[in-house]
Amino acid sequence: MNNIAIYQALTNVREKSPLVHNITNQVTINDCANALLAIGASPIMSDEPQDVVDITSICSALTLNIGTLNERSIEAMFHAAERSSELGHPIVLDPVGAGASRLRTKTAGDLLDRFPIAVIRGNMSEAKALASGATTTRGVDACPDDIVSETNLVESARFACELSARANAIVAITGPIDIIADADCAYAIRNGSPLQERITGAGCMLSCMCAAYAATAPSNLLEAMIAAVSSMGLAGQIAEKRMVNQDGNGSYRTYLLDALYCMDAEILEAGALIERVI
Amino acid sequence: MNNIAIYQALTNVREKSPLVHNITNQVTINDCANALLAIGASPIMSDEPQDVVDITSICSALTLNIGTLNERSIEAMFHAAERSSELGHPIVLDPVGAGASRLRTKTAGDLLDRFPIAVIRGNMSEAKALASGATTTRGVDACPDDIVSETNLVESARFACELSARANAIVAITGPIDIIADADCAYAIRNGSPLQERITGAGCMLSCMCAAYAATAPSNLLEAMIAAVSSMGLAGQIAEKRMVNQDGNGSYRTYLLDALYCMDAEILEAGALIERVI
Amino acid sequence: MNNIAIYQALTNVREKSPLVHNITNQVTINDCANALLAIGASPIMSDEPQDVVDITSICSALTLNIGTLNERSIEAMFHAAERSSELGHPIVLDPVGAGASRLRTKTAGDLLDRFPIAVIRGNMSEAKALASGATTTRGVDACPDDIVSETNLVESARFACELSARANAIVAITGPIDIIADADCAYAIRNGSPLQERITGAGCMLSCMCAAYAATAPSNLLEAMIAAVSSMGLAGQIAEKRMVNQDGNGSYRTYLLDALYCMDAEILEAGALIERVI
Repeated sequence: MNNIAIYQALTNVREKSPLVHNITNQVTINDCANALLAIGASPIMSDEPQDVVDITSICSALTLNIGTLNERSIEAMFHAAERSSELGHPIVLDPVGAGASRLRTKTAGDLLDRFPIAVIRGNMSEAKALASGATTTRGVDACPDDIVSETNLVESARFACELSARANAIVAITGPIDIIADADCAYAIRNGSPLQERITGAGCMLSCMCAAYAATAPSNLLEAMIAAVSSMGLAGQIAEKRMVNQDGNGSYRTYLLDALYCMDAEILEAGALIERVI
Repeated sequence: MNNIAIYQALTNVREKSPLVHNITNQVTINDCANALLAIGASPIMSDEPQDVVDITSICSALTLNIGTLNERSIEAMFHAAERSSELGHPIVLDPVGAGASRLRTKTAGDLLDRFPIAVIRGNMSEAKALASGATTTRGVDACPDDIVSETNLVESARFACELSARANAIVAITGPIDIIADADCAYAIRNGSPLQERITGAGCMLSCMCAAYAATAPSNLLEAMIAAVSSMGLAGQIAEKRMVNQDGNGSYRTYLLDALYCMDAEILEAGALIERVI
Repeated sequence: MNNIAIYQALTNVREKSPLVHNITNQVTINDCANALLAIGASPIMSDEPQDVVDITSICSALTLNIGTLNERSIEAMFHAAERSSELGHPIVLDPVGAGASRLRTKTAGDLLDRFPIAVIRGNMSEAKALASGATTTRGVDACPDDIVSETNLVESARFACELSARANAIVAITGPIDIIADADCAYAIRNGSPLQERITGAGCMLSCMCAAYAATAPSNLLEAMIAAVSSMGLAGQIAEKRMVNQDGNGSYRTYLLDALYCMDAEILEAGALIERVI
């Protein structure tokens, strides 16, 4: 791993301000836009099949998030992914709720099969559903048995490498411990706060951030994903430290965006907890 | 009324963390998810007809909110309600804007006619539209003539009991004074803040909360609805007290979520203003 | 220009509390609703073709924002615009991303051609796309070359007057310097903060505010638009002044709504920076 490339990745996003096309869910679409703006990128959203090809063409990365997929947005995802592939733009797939319904599992699988997905970003249950096609997730959260811990860390990392090899994509599995893997190596990130589970959208925002990072570091994709994931985790910790009496998840959501906005390479380098596992 | 059951209802939600499926409007969908997370429940949203049956099946309650209904989401509501009924899950109907358009009045009426709705949660104009099929509401707010006051309280409570008897559902009519009724008795709740009218989503969030409460207290549904409604009203008051110079509805919205997040049975018992009217 | 009419316009909105129908994008729909509530107006959203005619009929103004247009919402815009025209309600068009895709450019152009749009509110790139049908915008932000500055101010103002004459609409082009024009005269507004570009929705919120202002000042439309635009810019400045250590765009968004909420005619009169250019 190239440490310099990690911290440079954050600066790259701020300097290049990539325009990212996001086909994402209705629940957290506003948070996704504000997270991209916080890190210095520019968001655009479009999920109309007749509109997405033009929109993707002026962007430099694409996020596909199936959190509230529908017939129209699925069609839009396929059109946008096809155009992005032609243009060589990185595509980030967030398989929200894969495993929770057949439509979600199938759609995530189809996208992965048909397009050169650059990054898969989800929780462990979603990643397992993607790997096996099975249905075991509890809604949009990971099943308790699937959560990455110190006990199952190496095993989890091995799974991430295998999925990466099969999917030919960087795999970012987030949870109490995050795992970022390519086919050959895996890193554990021990940043983050339990409060990130008490707001909606931390994962969705991160997926959009991964797209912005991928757009600006195509030749250091693994390092860029480590930067994206550790910066979100560190922002989560900074936001938690800011919590005072009477604050709850309303304030936490604001603080999280604020922390992303204030993050720079120096803060990240001082706070990132990255360890090679495989 | 069983006082212990009221305060226990809040604790139940935190302990059981029910997964709630919400087919709701685009305006406040993010607030709904964060409100459910604030009270310790888990939200999932899906409004695609091909997806909702699987999603509802893994949940334990369903919220149907017609605030920005469309052809697809109406179809999704019917599919989800049918599956929820088969599984015996409680369904909460929020007839947003019933009376403001024929489509809204008809859709709310159809849902009520065809499915065993457990709870109706709306303002008085919406409740009247549901009872009569008439069109009198001013958008998504109650008409001034319909607002529950000390003067018309008993009459309003009687109407709520009648609607409850006809609909075979708990009726929760919210406003400056809230009324919670079954066929035989009605309670007035005098919590709440006028600032709740100055943000969007206070009613929508409450409807989702009602679904979480219903999921965890199926045999004490009236008490559980009293707990849900009074806890939202009390959170509204707590949020209002926190307002300082320069704060407006942006801060109020954050404080309201924070107050829901910090609420416990002790705070609720100390602050809830509940009176039996009928 | 009638100075009294400008500051009276703000008070009018608070006193008359107009109900505004907004067909707008999914990204900022919640911010739009809260901005309307902040200034004392009432929002309602509906984008289902079968619903919009009834909804528009009970409102007094219509906002059409194409930020995440789709086949259904485009159809809804046409139905709503037709009904609004019959009723003589002012229509505000926000051509988000016109120039970024053919569908957006065409839809904005069609709406302008077929309906008596009262106000066009967008950035300079969108206004140019609307005027020429050409495709030059960078997503939803203005192209650097298009940004209104002291250097190109008179030229930009002239363009705004020409577009106003052709479209028979007040033209509000916002950016670092805002231009408000009718066919004969143009005003520059030098309020605003660079932080407004670091959140999503400042423009969308303003378009909805323009609709509320138009609803309550049909005979002083130019003054009303100057009031709407300068009050948003001034709110942006007030919000910026409130920023403290660790604050980012999460807090800024809250402060902006708060500043709109606290704004009154006196604050606006003291802070508005309005100059006649043509």
